[in-house]
Amino acid sequence: MINPKFKEMLGQKSVIRNLSEAATARGKEIGYENVFDYSLGNPSVPTPDAFTKEMIRLLETESPMTLHGYSPSLGIESVRKAVADSLNKRFGMNYKASDIFMTSGAAGAVAHAVRAVTVPGDEVITFAPFFPEYHHYVGGTGAVLKIVPPDTKAFQIDFEKFEEMLTPSVKAVLINTPNNPTGVVYSKETLTKLADMLRAKSEEFGFPIYLISDEPYREILFGGAKINFVSSFYDHSICCYSFSKSLSLPGERIGYIAVNPADPDSTTIATMCGQISRGIGHNCPPSIIQLAVSKVLDLTSDMSVYEQNMRLLYAELTHLDFEVVKPDGTFYIFPKALEEDAVSFCNKALKYDLVLVPADSFGCPGYFRMAYCIDTEKVERSLTALRKIVSAEY
Amino acid sequence: MINPKFKEMLGQKSVIRNLSEAATARGKEIGYENVFDYSLGNPSVPTPDAFTKEMIRLLETESPMTLHGYSPSLGIESVRKAVADSLNKRFGMNYKASDIFMTSGAAGAVAHAVRAVTVPGDEVITFAPFFPEYHHYVGGTGAVLKIVPPDTKAFQIDFEKFEEMLTPSVKAVLINTPNNPTGVVYSKETLTKLADMLRAKSEEFGFPIYLISDEPYREILFGGAKINFVSSFYDHSICCYSFSKSLSLPGERIGYIAVNPADPDSTTIATMCGQISRGIGHNCPPSIIQLAVSKVLDLTSDMSVYEQNMRLLYAELTHLDFEVVKPDGTFYIFPKALEEDAVSFCNKALKYDLVLVPADSFGCPGYFRMAYCIDTEKVERSLTALRKIVSAEY
Repeated sequence: MINPKFKEMLGQKSVIRNLSEAATARGKEIGYENVFDYSLGNPSVPTPDAFTKEMIRLLETESPMTLHGYSPSLGIESVRKAVADSLNKRFGMNYKASDIFMTSGAAGAVAHAVRAVTVPGDEVITFAPFFPEYHHYVGGTGAVLKIVPPDTKAFQIDFEKFEEMLTPSVKAVLINTPNNPTGVVYSKETLTKLADMLRAKSEEFGFPIYLISDEPYREILFGGAKINFVSSFYDHSICCYSFSKSLSLPGERIGYIAVNPADPDSTTIATMCGQISRGIGHNCPPSIIQLAVSKVLDLTSDMSVYEQNMRLLYAELTHLDFEVVKPDGTFYIFPKALEEDAVSFCNKALKYDLVLVPADSFGCPGYFRMAYCIDTEKVERSLTALRKIVSAEY
Repeated sequence: MINPKFKEMLGQKSVIRNLSEAATARGKEIGYENVFDYSLGNPSVPTPDAFTKEMIRLLETESPMTLHGYSPSLGIESVRKAVADSLNKRFGMNYKASDIFMTSGAAGAVAHAVRAVTVPGDEVITFAPFFPEYHHYVGGTGAVLKIVPPDTKAFQIDFEKFEEMLTPSVKAVLINTPNNPTGVVYSKETLTKLADMLRAKSEEFGFPIYLISDEPYREILFGGAKINFVSSFYDHSICCYSFSKSLSLPGERIGYIAVNPADPDSTTIATMCGQISRGIGHNCPPSIIQLAVSKVLDLTSDMSVYEQNMRLLYAELTHLDFEVVKPDGTFYIFPKALEEDAVSFCNKALKYDLVLVPADSFGCPGYFRMAYCIDTEKVERSLTALRKIVSAEY
């Protein structure tokens, strides 16, 4: 018989998806170039040429049987080694190939990591605002997602509330920095304090609380900022990475888990991920994509447009007296709506062909997200619409 | 804390994997060309040129943002339509694009199908001998796998034992034809009788018992036989397909679910698969692989070598008085061992550098599997080793 849980989910279409569909429909009426669609976090810049060239080189020169043959369930050995080497070189870490597990993007990485370090019923803490799919990545494992309310001043961590919730039922903490939806990066101070608290509580409880770090936006930093590599702050950490944003490959579903080698169980956890995959029937990401990505690990797309767009939007939003924290990276900005109900605010914006996402589902009502991975020319034109809303509606 | 269930699985290395590793190790000593490795079901013929050319064409001519962009979670619409059209044309079916869900191979397909039509605790019946990973694809969902003992005469279905086990707890039946490990195809008579029994029991129980048909070997048939398309026999059927074998792309993890449009819930089930994916964090197979495969749906690799190898092995095995059913397809053959304990038999074979897989884990002790997706020249040389075992050991 049809599984009622999954059938019921069909009714719960995501707000983002609904808005994106509304934008597409409106685009059919007035031309999509006239819809200021800030709904979807889909990269707007091409993958580096080097990736395309490597794909073609593999197809033209490698034996098809080797190229398209089964990948070991943990990922192709040379690819795992290349990932470990790149992380070690860039972030002063000591990953071994055996600490790396290749995944279908960060989504697959987080879902595997949670399964590896929890059992059904365990709690996993995350911090609002957070990516709504976490409900599924965590809930799908049988673990229970607990949300620490947002620190709306700076979108760092409200440590007081966090500590209250950090009971022995919590087996993992899930963070996302640079953050979707705020664009904010956790400061060195935040990460240090977080690590200190996790160490103290791990000792108090007698088991390691794992820190699962969801890092698809790691490489998108503004103002030439240096990356604070989360795993360098805390030993019991699992880095969940995706190439979706940095290499503009969201459809190719490729990422990895890197388990901190300072954790005594690092290789065990990475190896367990191969077993977890068997139960999901997903096995491993495609061989050719693994191989091609392993040759461009230290490259990114040219992402300068995101910073340019951020500056334009941040300037206009602050000029219009929106309450907004300046993003440190990503392609998101997260202002407070001009009325308590962000859904009502975003509905009004739709009248001006401005597609904004209310943040209720991100655990932060009253705010909205703008995904500015669009052309700068369009961002510029959208500012007029933004001004009109403020003057006409508020 | 580390999940004990998955940690425990680390100790349980598959017999096939162990043997394959032994073969590789022995290959280092005497040269791999001298090891008659029948352990792994990895295609030994290249993918069609048309697939490689289409991949290169996509990379050279498509916009990288479109090509590598997010695929809808059910699969790319044009790909789903192409799959439906191809199945309709080839098998006289009436699939709509909305009945198709793109998956990471047949493994992903079976795991999704089981989740869609069962709830944890429900029973899923399969027939010995069966692919041992079914324990994981089914067990990972919380459903319980029940095994009907083998019909070792013809490797069809023992309907008497099946009917005894077909209680109202059974929500799905999982079949695999052409079969791994036997190479046998279910006859029209078997499929008709199976469908009749499922229809009668569905009516008796008051709910549809789903037939999940795992079909990675569908296109590998010998003697010019026509495909008996399973779903054409029974309305409540879910076809789980993979391009791993037919297009020699096991590493690219691409396949699909096709839910029989005669089932009133066909589109609901396919759509639910998109929701199931969210909880797994796997989402959908890579965009570029979906697009390339959709252009070569009606092609296969040149698989004539498999039939040639089968004929050589079958002739020699029968000549040596092995009890063996002639395979109708796949690249497997499944003889009875020359002693009761097939593990002991296969260990003796190893002394002659012949790597055979005992079928205990396939639910059929006393038998062994040979995967003859290797060069014919090697098959020919292996016959001498086979003769030596028989004369020296038995």
